[in-house]
Amino acid sequence: MELVTADDVRAAATRLQGHVVRTPLTAAPEESDLLLKPESLQPTGAFKLRGATNAVALLNPVQREHGVVTHSSGNHGLALAHAAARQGVSCTVVVPEGAPETKVDRIRALGARVVTVPPAERLAAATELRDRELLALVPPFDDPRVIAGQGTVGLEILEQSPEVTTIVVPVGGGGLASGVATAAGTVHPHRVRVVGVEPELAADAAESLREGRLVTWGPELTYRTMADGVRTCLSERTFAHLAVRLDEIVTVTEEEIASAVAALAHGARLVTEPSGALAAAAVLAGKVDTVPGRPGATVAVVSGGNVDPDLFGRLVARTWPAPGPYPGQARS
Amino acid sequence: MELVTADDVRAAATRLQGHVVRTPLTAAPEESDLLLKPESLQPTGAFKLRGATNAVALLNPVQREHGVVTHSSGNHGLALAHAAARQGVSCTVVVPEGAPETKVDRIRALGARVVTVPPAERLAAATELRDRELLALVPPFDDPRVIAGQGTVGLEILEQSPEVTTIVVPVGGGGLASGVATAAGTVHPHRVRVVGVEPELAADAAESLREGRLVTWGPELTYRTMADGVRTCLSERTFAHLAVRLDEIVTVTEEEIASAVAALAHGARLVTEPSGALAAAAVLAGKVDTVPGRPGATVAVVSGGNVDPDLFGRLVARTWPAPGPYPGQARS
Repeated sequence: MELVTADDVRAAATRLQGHVVRTPLTAAPEESDLLLKPESLQPTGAFKLRGATNAVALLNPVQREHGVVTHSSGNHGLALAHAAARQGVSCTVVVPEGAPETKVDRIRALGARVVTVPPAERLAAATELRDRELLALVPPFDDPRVIAGQGTVGLEILEQSPEVTTIVVPVGGGGLASGVATAAGTVHPHRVRVVGVEPELAADAAESLREGRLVTWGPELTYRTMADGVRTCLSERTFAHLAVRLDEIVTVTEEEIASAVAALAHGARLVTEPSGALAAAAVLAGKVDTVPGRPGATVAVVSGGNVDPDLFGRLVARTWPAPGPYPGQARS
Repeated sequence: MELVTADDVRAAATRLQGHVVRTPLTAAPEESDLLLKPESLQPTGAFKLRGATNAVALLNPVQREHGVVTHSSGNHGLALAHAAARQGVSCTVVVPEGAPETKVDRIRALGARVVTVPPAERLAAATELRDRELLALVPPFDDPRVIAGQGTVGLEILEQSPEVTTIVVPVGGGGLASGVATAAGTVHPHRVRVVGVEPELAADAAESLREGRLVTWGPELTYRTMADGVRTCLSERTFAHLAVRLDEIVTVTEEEIASAVAALAHGARLVTEPSGALAAAAVLAGKVDTVPGRPGATVAVVSGGNVDPDLFGRLVARTWPAPGPYPGQARS
């Protein structure tokens, strides 16, 4: 399988200018030798806007005329609706019956058409729409355009912190990790490590990489974690990228995720969803080595902030930690 | 009185490079035609780091050797402790008896000496330390170095959104508003309006500007607002700047402040303190005109995020609004 290249990521970065926020590196809570890359500050609240914007920008004229379709009702669906609207392309999002009304309303408010189907028929419905209406299908992660777009997070980190040696990213479908590892590994071979983080309760990527083959976990396992953004498994494509390019993968407990959400709220003034706090959770729990006194050496990607308000309130109230100082280095 | 100039602000911007975060412009909640400048993402959680860093950078060699002192235990005290530590200068913060232990601990953790005195003696104690130990006094707002540093927020907004026509800022002591109005008014005369925002319950600056003279409100009035960062009154120096350079000042209710904290948490993924949400509150409440479909035209400064966890939890739980789309434009 042909892998995404660093040149693909660089080209995506050019396309994304003016369409996504160049998020800064900001200080992490307490005495952690860590900087954060808060992708939760993107207009749709997650890094997914990068891949979606790149995919829409790469449509050919015929595709632009017919529009795009996806089967994700989560952060990718929202991102694709936003990216399509900004680029004057029509968008259809297939959502499962029973999806939270608030999420569906947000997608609709961005001008997208919403098609509701039984959960098991999502992929088939999106494929059928693609074939019948000649829509371009933009999957949430199993797509070179999307992987290249997500990789721009890594490019920016390399530019913003030249002394970085470790980048920590959450792993769900593996699009972000594939893209960032591509950016980091090819630009600075052997100098920048990329570490993936999964919940213990949805550790299919860790098992796949250990076994050397794609292993998938069913929803009866992955839905145990509160980190709803990473309940998906790798695809053959993202597995191929990670097997070659990811340096390490670690797992975190639900308690460590919960603590990280609270710590990021109080110590870094960021509202994050549990999936968005995974990378920081691994560092704060001591599962990723940092360089004492050199916060710019380790950067954790805060991937998203679209958290259910009730859940966020409970996490913040339950485990809000004692405040610490904010010693992190500032970067432009 | 000699006012701070745009050149002073430009010089401060050069000094601040690498010491403060160049915060991005990010999307505001719902359909508001508004961008945010989240200074809550500075390492100490507020814009105050800019003024403090500029003041420390401008010390002469003898002052650098003796160190700095201030009488603010809030965001400015934290900022000065951070700025001094980063620049290798010793720092003393005079705090009133009864100040929250968590705040004092954070100042101490940054290496500053903490001197505790009865509340009424704070200024006298800082002045005495200045005279006895030859420390350089760095006040929270009544200082040209501090005003110039805060003004860099405005310079960055002008660079980041060339079509900006209105910048909205909170007004407490007036340092931020004075600096931003200096940057905006002098760089683009008559094109960029700067609008100040105060709580109705601490509207001393609005009254001063209406009366054409400095009017101060006592703590029995200003302490009614939950926006604890803006309970202070203007000084003669900041009044002089605002009387000449501020285009308008509006007030917001406690309910509007509370709603804005909740809206920024859910809709913009930002943890803000009530004072930090003032500018956005005025826009979201319809008290500042925006340009439909042109979010880059109006920018609200989110000045800080050091909120008491209990208060934040209550604000978010009580008035968390229905989610909306995120149509704001992205800027690097």
